[in-house]
Amino acid sequence: MPRFKPDELLNFSERLLCLGGMPHDDSQLVARLLLKADLRGYSGHGISRIPSYLSWIKAGTTSLSKKPKVVREGKTTAVIDGNHYIGQVVAYEGMKLAITKAEEHGVGIACLLRAGHVGRLADYVEMAAEQGMIGMGAVSVGSGNIALYGGMERVTGTNPMAFAIPAKNGRHIILDFATSAMSMGELQKRLSRKEAIPDGVMLDGYGNPTNDFKVFRGPPRGVFLPFGGYKGSGLNLITEILGGILSGNGLGREWWNKGGHAVSGVFLQALAVEEFQSLEHFLEKVDELVSFVKSSKSAIGFKEILLPGERARRREARRLKEGVEIDEATWTQLTRCAAELGVKNVPEPVQRME
Amino acid sequence: MPRFKPDELLNFSERLLCLGGMPHDDSQLVARLLLKADLRGYSGHGISRIPSYLSWIKAGTTSLSKKPKVVREGKTTAVIDGNHYIGQVVAYEGMKLAITKAEEHGVGIACLLRAGHVGRLADYVEMAAEQGMIGMGAVSVGSGNIALYGGMERVTGTNPMAFAIPAKNGRHIILDFATSAMSMGELQKRLSRKEAIPDGVMLDGYGNPTNDFKVFRGPPRGVFLPFGGYKGSGLNLITEILGGILSGNGLGREWWNKGGHAVSGVFLQALAVEEFQSLEHFLEKVDELVSFVKSSKSAIGFKEILLPGERARRREARRLKEGVEIDEATWTQLTRCAAELGVKNVPEPVQRME
Repeated sequence: MPRFKPDELLNFSERLLCLGGMPHDDSQLVARLLLKADLRGYSGHGISRIPSYLSWIKAGTTSLSKKPKVVREGKTTAVIDGNHYIGQVVAYEGMKLAITKAEEHGVGIACLLRAGHVGRLADYVEMAAEQGMIGMGAVSVGSGNIALYGGMERVTGTNPMAFAIPAKNGRHIILDFATSAMSMGELQKRLSRKEAIPDGVMLDGYGNPTNDFKVFRGPPRGVFLPFGGYKGSGLNLITEILGGILSGNGLGREWWNKGGHAVSGVFLQALAVEEFQSLEHFLEKVDELVSFVKSSKSAIGFKEILLPGERARRREARRLKEGVEIDEATWTQLTRCAAELGVKNVPEPVQRME
Repeated sequence: MPRFKPDELLNFSERLLCLGGMPHDDSQLVARLLLKADLRGYSGHGISRIPSYLSWIKAGTTSLSKKPKVVREGKTTAVIDGNHYIGQVVAYEGMKLAITKAEEHGVGIACLLRAGHVGRLADYVEMAAEQGMIGMGAVSVGSGNIALYGGMERVTGTNPMAFAIPAKNGRHIILDFATSAMSMGELQKRLSRKEAIPDGVMLDGYGNPTNDFKVFRGPPRGVFLPFGGYKGSGLNLITEILGGILSGNGLGREWWNKGGHAVSGVFLQALAVEEFQSLEHFLEKVDELVSFVKSSKSAIGFKEILLPGERARRREARRLKEGVEIDEATWTQLTRCAAELGVKNVPEPVQRME
């Protein structure tokens, strides 16, 4: 796979998005978050998204005519109508507002409706951690393919949930996961590599467990399962309510035929640690817990115990040094977009640095 | 198993706890919550706990000399030092305070340290739902037996997490689960019935998966696993931080040799739905989601899709009519306690009513 310098990819992505119609500031934010996903190892949320983002702008699925707007506000709470604007911008503004409220009142919550595709939920809860706050988030996504525990028909989406805990030296604990048994990104990766799909991920169109994607596809088409049995299924339902209903975005299914994965309902919360104790003391205790975890023995088949977010930070450090690999198909698409939009100075691949 | 009238069990439990040393009001609250657990099918948190509660009072593990006290308070937040008082009383007062704050400011959070054994976390988040609020809770329990994902040494406890969503006619969605693969109550039930322990619950003392409790017990003793792989493991870690660190209770391990399961650190949050939209509209939408779930087809091996809390409410309705079964061993212990304390009018078993 070709490998690129991160700063060149960032600049290239900004120009693609900007010439594709995004205001300059917004293109900077989106490009930064997409590249961050590539750096941290979540290429499904990386710059590979740019072609679909550009096509959504063309089609009006992403609307640039109306900015996000606070439509209801209390001391600690706000509802923001994203007006189908760029999801990252809506969520970024939402978490900024939640943090401002938490600074003043201890806790702040922003619920977002008609937000676009927000990318990685991790990025917004991490904003809270950067301010010494605890971040929480939940998303109801508008593309449905998940059955609840015991069901065989789609009810919700892969609805992610995330938490961020501030830690020393920016080594925040960042837990971000799909409440489905497998994220669609992971599924695509396994399919493209012809790797097995494990048990507990899919039912066929008759409600029987299957590991075969062809059988899943049908017809009749099957359904994906939530993670962790009734517990994960319950969390999937809670994300649907916090992200979808509380925000006023509605149930995910209301969007299945109207933009699907380009529409999210989002719940974002920031909680100021200093309301409870000094941040310093909190960070000490988190450090103590982290050291305890890291010093405890690994089970058979594991080299070490990783904290949520740890592997992603290691990948980022490596890729900042060695460059970011982009798969051929994505690169072909991106250069095609560049040609269409007249974006010059397309980055050249660099050599491996090992 | 002998079967009893719920009101007679309630009255009997109150008198046991009261004569065992609890103030009258507190014995009423605790007895009500214990009986509610029996009614809803969680006998491990039911009146079977009374003998150990009485022994904790005798031993001073539960201290009745100092009441719980608010030690730090902000507009939306509070820290309550439980002073090792009766856990249910500490958690009940904590959630009441969180609800009061949410009424005034939209959201309220109470963190509890040195709370005793709080019983079912569901009961406190449900208090929020009863007031048209969304309840959230997390507990760091002081008895450690859970390894994180990838580990083979105990790091945390079965740390439960709970959410309550208000719904029409009191049919609230109540999700309450141990972040371990199996709760200790469920494990005990399976062992006493000689039922199999499924995959993914235990490692032996050498870090290998096992389904055999004898192998687990060792020596060397094994460890229990979190639910749902790295996702459930991450949630277990988050509960440890929200319940244990943020409250000031400390890591669960600090209590392993000092009272263990009689000490909890607790996080309780109430969020007023009406900050975001009218409660009526919210309840309509939740009802729409519930109807959608209930009308969707069940998978092979399932009769219907149950919402979190639904099975428990059905059991309660049945037991309120037919009586509550108490296992022989528990009943023998309770009558022994009654004899020791001089509690008269021990309830008589009633006939089955089918």
